[in-house]
Amino acid sequence: MKNFFISKSRRVRSTPFTSRIEEQGVKSYTVYNHMLLPITFSSVEEEYLHLKKDVQVWDVSVQREIEISGKDSHRLVQLMTCRDLSNSKIGSCYYAPLVDVNGGIINDPLIYKLSDDKWRVCIADSDVLLFAKGIAGSKGLNVDIFEADINTLAIQGPKSFKLMEEVFGKEITKLKFFKFDFFNFKNNKYLISRSGFSKQGGYEVHIDNIDAGLLLYDHLFNIGNKYNLKPGAPNHAERIEGGLLSYGSDMLINDNPFECGFENSVHLDTNIEFLGKESLKKIKTKGINKKLMGVKIDTKELGLTDVQLLDTNNNIIGELRSAAFSPSFKKIVGIAMVNKDFCKNYQKFNMKIKDNLITGSIYNFPIL
Amino acid sequence: MKNFFISKSRRVRSTPFTSRIEEQGVKSYTVYNHMLLPITFSSVEEEYLHLKKDVQVWDVSVQREIEISGKDSHRLVQLMTCRDLSNSKIGSCYYAPLVDVNGGIINDPLIYKLSDDKWRVCIADSDVLLFAKGIAGSKGLNVDIFEADINTLAIQGPKSFKLMEEVFGKEITKLKFFKFDFFNFKNNKYLISRSGFSKQGGYEVHIDNIDAGLLLYDHLFNIGNKYNLKPGAPNHAERIEGGLLSYGSDMLINDNPFECGFENSVHLDTNIEFLGKESLKKIKTKGINKKLMGVKIDTKELGLTDVQLLDTNNNIIGELRSAAFSPSFKKIVGIAMVNKDFCKNYQKFNMKIKDNLITGSIYNFPIL
Repeated sequence: MKNFFISKSRRVRSTPFTSRIEEQGVKSYTVYNHMLLPITFSSVEEEYLHLKKDVQVWDVSVQREIEISGKDSHRLVQLMTCRDLSNSKIGSCYYAPLVDVNGGIINDPLIYKLSDDKWRVCIADSDVLLFAKGIAGSKGLNVDIFEADINTLAIQGPKSFKLMEEVFGKEITKLKFFKFDFFNFKNNKYLISRSGFSKQGGYEVHIDNIDAGLLLYDHLFNIGNKYNLKPGAPNHAERIEGGLLSYGSDMLINDNPFECGFENSVHLDTNIEFLGKESLKKIKTKGINKKLMGVKIDTKELGLTDVQLLDTNNNIIGELRSAAFSPSFKKIVGIAMVNKDFCKNYQKFNMKIKDNLITGSIYNFPIL
Repeated sequence: MKNFFISKSRRVRSTPFTSRIEEQGVKSYTVYNHMLLPITFSSVEEEYLHLKKDVQVWDVSVQREIEISGKDSHRLVQLMTCRDLSNSKIGSCYYAPLVDVNGGIINDPLIYKLSDDKWRVCIADSDVLLFAKGIAGSKGLNVDIFEADINTLAIQGPKSFKLMEEVFGKEITKLKFFKFDFFNFKNNKYLISRSGFSKQGGYEVHIDNIDAGLLLYDHLFNIGNKYNLKPGAPNHAERIEGGLLSYGSDMLINDNPFECGFENSVHLDTNIEFLGKESLKKIKTKGINKKLMGVKIDTKELGLTDVQLLDTNNNIIGELRSAAFSPSFKKIVGIAMVNKDFCKNYQKFNMKIKDNLITGSIYNFPIL
């Protein structure tokens, strides 16, 4: 595939770490929430293997945080998601599909409860700020909504625990999955969650003070050699194998939470109020006829427009949404929206790529 | 400045014309509304001069169109904008700032009225779809809202009129500015508006049928030689000189319509209902203390972080929002948010660039 340059502008924002990662040799970017997201430093294959073995620091400032505070903040956050947040706890993160009035997914954020009247919605790639503002403005809710000036570093990989222990002390290793707390380093306080867009374990540091962020960034690389620390980025093959979904690729507004495997986060029998409740009740009663599944495809390269999954009679039985070469399986792994009848582990399918018939198999997540 | 590659993915969508413009030698892209926007084919300077002299075809499919239809569609469109649409006409386009409950600008679309209950909001770079859905879902409005499958080609430049006349006949030259109508070519019907993001004149063809779009694209380049037709893209220097604003660069959600020169589109004395009405009344009473102005800066190159405008005592008097090298003036032109006291044509200012003091002047739009 031919390469093209990215044109930088003020509309597509840099992050506080952009100059650092450019010194460290970043090669390519994508744009996510109107901001630069680094993609590769060496090659995605090398970085896949490194991520599974050592530890990486990712500049994921693009995970913008929509802060919602005020008397009606709990009500507003609940209005946006089908996940029941009634018993939510301060210090916990909630992975929660946001849905529109039709039950279509508009984002799949991690929601941080900071206090009973202060929440941060840490978003995937769509302007949740405008959805929240549309609802709050229409209902006259007593809330303050804005995109917080927070930039996030993810520390991911099996050695992330030892690295972070060296910086923040033993205490941080006791932080449980999807919990967050405040930790100190050189007189600065950092909000850190045990979370991240990989299945290799790690933390996310939510930085609200750029100087403190740069201090930490440089310190991590100063001491990182013994952990083989490298700069990195979310790795598609790794997250696909783990079944971590990417909003905008794997699912969009015309997909509902049942089709995307979020059935455990759809709470229709409680008395919570959210926009898509009636629609999701109807969808549940009617049942779904397609679902997101993992796939392996017996080839090493695919074009972006190669998306049709076929049965043996050349009928379309699914649509590929994400794909990447897996160094583990030495073939393409992917995520596809598959007709219900074919949603079975090891189910075979075909794809027609440049007049060749290529075979593949459906998998449950994680893809093993 | 160092160059970086753009990482392509399904999340950042291609357009129906992407394969065409890649054959035609596009060099760089940006991302706009989750889609690829071409930026340069040769150099922005060459393309500036060509745009002012001849004619270009731009793939501006990124100008996504949010279609709002149904009984309450007029009400919903009005709820989003401070511009009074009571007397709006079918066949007209309305440039209208959309505002949140605080009066902050969330987009500056061109709104197309197709019928009394069918509108298309042709958007700048933010998810207006989610704002509309938030409002409609909260108020229980009877509307259907979706991103239409429309991809737009802009035909821009002084020779666009002759070129389009050859394709669509004399009739199209009678279309007035900010009007639209349907025109035929080879048994296909095209919705065409007299509009576009340049001051050189031209049309936008809103394509809802990809085959018809590709047919037109190829035909334009088949007959285009005699008009010196070339592929192109919105040109920053040209649009800055003309005072065409770019949402995300020149203005964002913390800016209000008065600060951005939209005072003629803020209708507070009519009985229309929109979210930001009370806030804009207060802002109007209080008055504003900064405003977007044109600038010329006496240098040929600026970094993206060079933004502070200074007075002779080194006080900050403004913030540069957009900048580009102008082949006409042989210096940088830009758009800046300037403290009110300095919003005067020919007002001098300084900028500190890498320890050098550089001079500049404020201008009214268009920058002459």
